[in-house]
Formats: sequence, structure tokens, C-alpha cells
Amino acid sequence: MFEGRTTGTPIQLLIRNTDQRSKDYGDIAEKFRPGHADITYFQKYGNRDYRGGGRSSARETAARVAAGGVARAALAALLPDVKITGYMVQMGPHKIDRTNFDLAQIEENPFWAPDATAAEKWDGYLSQLRKSGSSVGAVVEVMASGVPAGLGAPVYAKLDTDIAAAMMSINAVKAVEIGAGMEAATLTGEENADEITMGPDGPEFSSNHAGGILGGISTGQDLVSRFAVKPTSSILTPRKTITKSGENTEIITKGRHDPCVGIRAVPVGEAMMACVILDHYLLHRGQIGENPGKIG
Amino acid sequence: MFEGRTTGTPIQLLIRNTDQRSKDYGDIAEKFRPGHADITYFQKYGNRDYRGGGRSSARETAARVAAGGVARAALAALLPDVKITGYMVQMGPHKIDRTNFDLAQIEENPFWAPDATAAEKWDGYLSQLRKSGSSVGAVVEVMASGVPAGLGAPVYAKLDTDIAAAMMSINAVKAVEIGAGMEAATLTGEENADEITMGPDGPEFSSNHAGGILGGISTGQDLVSRFAVKPTSSILTPRKTITKSGENTEIITKGRHDPCVGIRAVPVGEAMMACVILDHYLLHRGQIGENPGKIG
Amino acid sequence: MFEGRTTGTPIQLLIRNTDQRSKDYGDIAEKFRPGHADITYFQKYGNRDYRGGGRSSARETAARVAAGGVARAALAALLPDVKITGYMVQMGPHKIDRTNFDLAQIEENPFWAPDATAAEKWDGYLSQLRKSGSSVGAVVEVMASGVPAGLGAPVYAKLDTDIAAAMMSINAVKAVEIGAGMEAATLTGEENADEITMGPDGPEFSSNHAGGILGGISTGQDLVSRFAVKPTSSILTPRKTITKSGENTEIITKGRHDPCVGIRAVPVGEAMMACVILDHYLLHRGQIGENPGKIG
Amino acid sequence: MFEGRTTGTPIQLLIRNTDQRSKDYGDIAEKFRPGHADITYFQKYGNRDYRGGGRSSARETAARVAAGGVARAALAALLPDVKITGYMVQMGPHKIDRTNFDLAQIEENPFWAPDATAAEKWDGYLSQLRKSGSSVGAVVEVMASGVPAGLGAPVYAKLDTDIAAAMMSINAVKAVEIGAGMEAATLTGEENADEITMGPDGPEFSSNHAGGILGGISTGQDLVSRFAVKPTSSILTPRKTITKSGENTEIITKGRHDPCVGIRAVPVGEAMMACVILDHYLLHRGQIGENPGKIG
Repeated sequence: MFEGRTTGTPIQLLIRNTDQRSKDYGDIAEKFRPGHADITYFQKYGNRDYRGGGRSSARETAARVAAGGVARAALAALLPDVKITGYMVQMGPHKIDRTNFDLAQIEENPFWAPDATAAEKWDGYLSQLRKSGSSVGAVVEVMASGVPAGLGAPVYAKLDTDIAAAMMSINAVKAVEIGAGMEAATLTGEENADEITMGPDGPEFSSNHAGGILGGISTGQDLVSRFAVKPTSSILTPRKTITKSGENTEIITKGRHDPCVGIRAVPVGEAMMACVILDHYLLHRGQIGENPGKIG
Repeated sequence: MFEGRTTGTPIQLLIRNTDQRSKDYGDIAEKFRPGHADITYFQKYGNRDYRGGGRSSARETAARVAAGGVARAALAALLPDVKITGYMVQMGPHKIDRTNFDLAQIEENPFWAPDATAAEKWDGYLSQLRKSGSSVGAVVEVMASGVPAGLGAPVYAKLDTDIAAAMMSINAVKAVEIGAGMEAATLTGEENADEITMGPDGPEFSSNHAGGILGGISTGQDLVSRFAVKPTSSILTPRKTITKSGENTEIITKGRHDPCVGIRAVPVGEAMMACVILDHYLLHRGQIGENPGKIG
Repeated sequence: MFEGRTTGTPIQLLIRNTDQRSKDYGDIAEKFRPGHADITYFQKYGNRDYRGGGRSSARETAARVAAGGVARAALAALLPDVKITGYMVQMGPHKIDRTNFDLAQIEENPFWAPDATAAEKWDGYLSQLRKSGSSVGAVVEVMASGVPAGLGAPVYAKLDTDIAAAMMSINAVKAVEIGAGMEAATLTGEENADEITMGPDGPEFSSNHAGGILGGISTGQDLVSRFAVKPTSSILTPRKTITKSGENTEIITKGRHDPCVGIRAVPVGEAMMACVILDHYLLHRGQIGENPGKIG
Repeated sequence: MFEGRTTGTPIQLLIRNTDQRSKDYGDIAEKFRPGHADITYFQKYGNRDYRGGGRSSARETAARVAAGGVARAALAALLPDVKITGYMVQMGPHKIDRTNFDLAQIEENPFWAPDATAAEKWDGYLSQLRKSGSSVGAVVEVMASGVPAGLGAPVYAKLDTDIAAAMMSINAVKAVEIGAGMEAATLTGEENADEITMGPDGPEFSSNHAGGILGGISTGQDLVSRFAVKPTSSILTPRKTITKSGENTEIITKGRHDPCVGIRAVPVGEAMMACVILDHYLLHRGQIGENPGKIG
């Protein structure tokens, strides 16, 4: 920033880790945690910084959230109608009830749950998990409204391709959905066809199974993406594993315990969505300029 | 090819469309098909070749399959143990029964189903759909065995990121899963921890919820990815839509009718998996060379 | 093209070689031509298609010229003031006389020489070379007028970086200059400072040692780039070389003889300039939009 | 670094500017320096940090030298025979005498001159320039020996393309040469043909007009690149210019004065060469593996 404006230079973000806890890493240094990237990192590089998870630590997502903040600031200037909202829709086996869906609830509970009843249930469930030293997965949904039609491209740089890549790249994510997602498999063509009528400001759709994207290009509807976060491997029940020298052993992971890391993934998902939308807006402006196709 | 070997030049593939059918495109030329990329293509470019779906046609996937053939030929030379197999695991609401799972069945039925009982059921279901001029979605699974540990990277160019992007880029795909996929949300940390023991050739795992990838890097287990394909929008039941000039109308789509396009997506998914594995093997060889980390 | 407009699909160019001449490649098949890419291609790939130069043939530049034609068509629509002109300024030791400089002459002689006197001299010189079966190098200059200020970037994707890469990538090019080029080494700061005054349409410069680029970004002056083309290695005087099996021998190259390939490089240089300007215009429009900084 | 080895994580370099001098930037803040990127930066971004040149400052090259240090460390492990040496071969109009060429001299004078006589002459010349508050350009040559044959590619990612881009991207560079460079224009085919004979360790060449690169691929000879650096625009003689608001005026640049910035460009050129060679080695290893083509 200089004289109140950015200067066109790259923005560099530096986040210092001020919360390192000195502790005995002995177990983690020698043994691989099942379900954790310890083993693959070692298999690739023959080396690994085991302190706090090293390069595979979800601390990395702090940089994503910071970058998302920059992307949101740029979107506020370039596409002021865009609004990006993330929330949790499932904790372990417990899904929200869509008939209770209320975005105003998100800030009212510690789980970013858009369903007050679900939040209450999750609270009790999470307490149990914490007591037992266990952990569980979650599903996060990110919705972006106000995204103009036309972002994306038909083959390379599809908008859904880039959202899928962005979400799957978040630590612990194992699946990404757009719109109807896996449920699209069960739909008939009649159900899946979001019917179109002409509204005062352009096309309107009777439903949004497409999640705001058709053929890799945004429709102008809300972008809707969901992703599943696996449970953390840091649990108190012993699991079989091996050491760096290849001996069979067991491991339990003490230290910080986080029974549902999916909660922390909500702002990360929002940040990734912001980065993808900004990227695609700039690409689109480069390719097409300010006068895209207009219907009617 | 020259003197029996490739020469290092790029391989160019040219597939001529020899099955164009002259017909009246009148309806499709003027109206947008709900659930189809017609409308977004027009919204982006202000123009569209409506003949046969134009740029958004799934004919594009023929090029993917051809490219996958080249990738498989290269893999056969570089990583001869790699075996890539795709199959359908769900048609509409009907899933295969995993207790019947038998890869030998794939070639025995027209649905690439690894479950003879499911194939029979799907046959009847598909006949009904065809008669009613309807369509339905599907889930395809692609498995790659023999992939060495160490492919991928911890933050950028994660192996699962690239698989997600590759699969989501296929026409009509709305979701991508790795390993446990969306079900990872319901697992506890104890269940999700694929336990490790030392085998004669390296680490062995008690299960594969990870789908062969931890922290963006391959574990040496089977890579397992699934993707959901939405139903085609070409159906005989009229749907509400608008014309290019913005008038409300209805559309039905005559012509070729394909009640479950997911079937055709099986070889496409295999091809994308082959391309991603080859890319990552070459990247890995560049970054690490021939001597990756070894356990034990 | 569809209904008189492009459709947003990638443009594919296919040029068939209809002028292959069947001949005995025996010598070239076994021996490497000094000064030619035969040997490095073999050193890299362990294989080589020797027919007509294979992948290293300057026939490849036909694709560049075709791509440049597409870029020029796009520039005609997007930046109609841009005019790109290439010409030869030196053949072997014989430079044009800048006091004779007249772009109207370019079309009047077979050397694209903007100096009628030089063209005459080159004609005689080239006849001698042809008779003796020799060859010689050349310098080509490419000028682009009407390029707006602001294209390029300060560190990555500098406009001069990309022009240098584009020109150096042309077969047989060994040097690239922008503006004063190598002569910039001999200038004092006073000479090199293109003085600025305010004109009716923006800044005006007293000279153009910068070649239209300062700090990687266009100034609005003419872009001026020159590149040196080495002589072809296809000559009739025997040169010492080795065979594929490593034996010492000699080679002369019969067949098509082109005493100054630099002449053919003129339209190639124009094409590369067109591609770079179009790329940078689209990048700039993406990054900055339609309202760049304005002075005064 | 962890336990004495890198861990596969990206290497982040942070150089703090500890030598900022508080001064009156009034003149530079309002006026553009002719021959400097001030004006184009403003034309692109409509904004500019004028303090010390901002984003266009050659301070940026400190990062290049640091990155080159990392590249050299990697090369020392991967290609221990590679030796990269930069030196000045021309200051203003004064070239070195190639018959005096002696790399041992480089460390013996403040100009990295491989010619003791030239260094002496330059010393006096530079004193005069300093007294008069003037500046002058220079030519830097960078040589890399021990580079294996086969790095690069025939069309995309040519080694000479990437060297040209890397050198041209350095602040103030206006031309890049490979091997014979601009002089290649004056050579005949007979002169330009570096003759090949078989030596005990592979092909040997009678000369190196190619600068170690044929058809975009390294020959195994020394890589030789030269680049011209323009004189700094910070001079004491007033030059005509305009202000940000478009008024005609004059400017002189006080403050730090550096009569020949080309001297500082020597380690920068070495660093860029190191980065390009390392990149191409890793690319080559990815593409070809450890068994490239062998002659004989």
C-alpha cells in the first residue's frame, strides 16, 4: 500500500507462528501416524520435519485464508455483488435439516451451522468425541451469490474444474461436489433440468441442481460447492503403525486434540472460493472484455 | 513414429467426425436446453455453434480417450506395474453390491459393471428409461493399482488435486471422490486410520480409506477415485426454457437419445487417470530422480 | 467460424507439407551437419527423424506465421492502430544505410529491404554466395507502431522478456535486441535518456533508444526489436563431422540451397511480434481493465 | 533445513532493506526520469511508489542473486561439473582485448574484467564519468562450462529461449546474445559450422559459434551468453521531462550515483544462468530420465 492504494506489486503475506509449543516429539519423530501424510512425505523426500506436522500441517491453511482476504478485497471493488458464505452441513453422521436452513444462524454457534437444532445436537456429539479422544469428519458447503454469468471456459480452465481443484487441495478433503454433487447420479433428466424463464434482469431458474455452473461456465445462479473433510488422525486410541526403520509398533497422538477439524475448514473453503472467482473474473475480462453475450 | 520409435516430437491426434447427421437444428438453434451448457456458452461468448452441442459436446471426450491411450503406452514402458480400471458402481438409485465385486465381470456386460446382479437390474431399468424418453445419472469408479509411493507434492500439484480437476473437467461430472470420499465425513479417526504394518516389499495397509493418497502424495496403495455423472438434458418430456431473444417457451430434444451417459464416461475416467499418473511420474522423476525415500 | 463469427473455440491450424521431395537422405541420415540441431536432437532423444531436418526444420515457422495471422486479425479488432512491419537491415556484413530508410521500399525488392541501394547491393552479393554454394547470416528488424502504453509488467511477464523469448525461439536466431540493443552499452546516460515532452495526445519522446519499452512496460512509442539469424549449415564446402556411430568423416549438404535464410525470417518475426502484443493486451485487460493510468 | 538436509518445502528468501536513506523525493515524486520505468509504471497502474524506484528498482536483483545461490547449491549436488562465470567484456565503447582473456583476472579488479589492461583503462574512464555526473552502458558475458548435452527442447522450452528471457528480464538489459550473437549475421556458413570430431569423451568441436546450443538443445560445449546493460538514468545533467499532471519541466537526479550499473549486473547474470540450467536439468530428467542418447 502506498498513498492509500495498492501499487501493482505482488502482495506478500508473512504469518509468524507465535504459538509453537515445545514438547517431546519423540513418538511422532520415529513413527508414522496412520491416516496422516507423515509416511508419504517421507516416501517422497526421504526426509521430513516432524515438528507439528511440518509441511503437511494444516497450519498452511492460514496462508489460504489470508490470500482469500486479499481476493475478497479485490472482489469488493470489482464485483461488489459477490457474497461468499461457508457453513457446515454435516458433522459425522449428523446432517443439518435443510428445512431449518437459516444463514443468520451461522454466526450464532461455534460450528458455522445454518440450523440451530443441528448445532445443538453437534455440541453434545462433539463433547463425547472429545472425552473419548476420538475425532470425526464433516461436510462444509460454500455458496457464492452475485457471481455474473460467463465466468469459466468450455474445456480448459472450466470454473467447476478449478473449484474442485481448489477445494480438494485443502488439507484432509476427500471429496468435492458442485450443485447436486454425488446425488446427481440419482436424478432423472427431468429432475436435473433446472427450468429457465425470463425475468426482469435476465434468465431465472426454477432450481439449482447445476450449482451455478453448466459446461464449465457460470450461469449467474449461486455457486454451490461442498467438500468432505476426513477426521484428524490425532486420536488417543492406539493404532498399528511402523517406524522409519520399518519396525512394527503402535502409536497414540497426544498434544493438541481437535475432534472435528472440519469446523476450521469453513473459512478455508470460503477463501478458496474467493480466489477462484477472482481468478476467473480476471481471466474472463482478459478474454472477453467488458461486453459479454446478452440474452434478450 | 520413425524407425519404430517416437522421435520426441509432440504427438498430434486428429479425429474426424464421420457420423454427422444432417437434421433440423431449428429448435436447439433458438432455444436453450435446461441443464445444458447452451445458455452459459452464449452468455460468455454471445455466440454459439448449436450443431450437435458445439464446443460443449461430449464428443470432446474422444480426444481425452485418445490422449489416455498415449499416456497408457508411455506408462507401459515407464511404470509397467500400473493397471488402470474403470467401472460403473451406480446407475440412478441402483448401486452395485460390493460383496459381489468382481472385476472379471466388467467385460461381460454393456455397463462395465463389476457385479453381475447389478448389471441385470440396470438392464431392465435402462429399458424403461429409454421407452419413456427419460435419462438418469451414474457413478463411475476408477482404480489404479501398481502406482509407486511418492507421486504428488504436499501443497502445489497435489496428486488428489489433479485427479479432482481431471475428473471434474469431464463433461457432466458434478462430484469427485478420493477413497472414502463423501463418506469420510461420517468416519471416526479410529476408522479412518488405515493401519500400517511392515510387509516384505514395504509398508502394508489394513484398509484404504485414503484412496491411495495422503497429504497429496501417493502411498503405494491403489488409487481410488469416483465421480458422479449427471443425466443428459436430451429428454422427450417438455421443459420450460427461453429463446435467444429472451422469450419464454418449452423444449423437447429429439434425435439421438442416450438414457445413461455415465456408461460412456467409464473409458474417459480411465484416460484422465492415466494422464494424471503419467504427468505426476514425470514431475516426480524431474524433482526427485530415481532414488526416492525408502522405509526400513 | 460459424455464422460469420468465431465461436470461442480454440483455432486449430493444419498445414500439410505438399512439397516433400523424395531423395537420398543417406548422408544426412548417418552424419551430423555441423552448425545444425541434428546432433543435439540425437544427444537428447537418442533418435531423430533426419528427413528434411525433422522437428528442427524451419518448416516449423510456417505454423508461427499462420498463428501470427490469427493474432493480427484479433489485433485488427481490438487494437486497430497497431501496425507491425518487419524488414531486413543487414545481410552478411552489409547493413542498410539508415539515411535511406523508406518503408515503402520493403515491398519493392525480394529482401524486404527498406533501402533501395542496399537491396541492389545484396542482390549481387547473394548471387555470388549462391554460385559458391555458401550461405550468410542476416539481421531482421520488426517494428510495431500504435501499441498503447502500459502493456507488460515490472518483474514477471515483462514485455521485453517475452519479445526476447519469442524472437530467440525462432530457428537460427542467435541474438535479440530491443531499441538501442547492444549499442546501449556504448551510450551515456545523457544520450540514452529519451527526453519527454507533453504532446496533444500524451507524452512524446525525443528519441527511442528504449525501443518502446521501459521497465518491462510499453511506453506508447514504436516497439523496435532486431534479431540476428545465423547462416544455414547446408553448404557445398565439405566440413568435418562424425557419424551416429562416432566415426570421423566429412559432409556436404546437397539439395535445396538457401544462401540467406534470414530473408524468410522477416514474416516469422512479424508473426511473433503480433502474438506477443496480443497476449500482452489480453493480460493487461485482465489485470487492469479498460481504465489504465492517464498522465495530465 | 532440518537435520542438515532440505525437507522438500519451498525455500523462501527474505531480504530486508537496511540501507534506506531518508531524503527528499520531491522531484522524483512529481517528475518522470527519462530512460526510467517511472513513466510506464504510472501509465499502467495509475499509481507508483517513487521511493527509491519502487517496484522498478534494481534492488529487485538482490532476490535473483539469492535465488541463484540456491540454484548453484543444487547444481553442485546434481551436476558438480557445472561452473558458471560472469565478467564484463565492454564498458561504454571500450571492449576487452580477447587476446588478453584470462579468467584469473576477474577477481583482481573491481570490474570483473578478464583483461588486466582493459580494467586499467576502464578505471580512468569511470573516474571521468563519475566526476561529470554521467553514466555509461556495458556488456556482460556469462559462461557455463560442464553443462551436459541434451538440455532444452526443439520447439517449446528451448534452452536459448529461456536464457534470452532470463537475461532480458534483468533491469536495464536491452539485448541478449548466444554464442556469436549479433555477429552471426556476418558469418558465412563455412565459418559458422563448428566442425565436429570424435574425442575420448564424446564429440569435440573446433569452435563455439553456437554458444553451446543448437536447435534449442545444449551441445555439451560451454554455454556462452552476453547481454548489454543500458546506462542508468540517474545523471546530473538536466533532461527534459513532464510531471504527473502533464506539465513540461526538467529533471536532474541527485542521490546515489552509479556511473556503470553494468558492473553490478555480473553476479545477476550468473544467477540467472544458474537458475535456467537447474530448471532445464530438472525438466530434462523428468522428460528423458537418466539415459539420454549416446553417440558412438
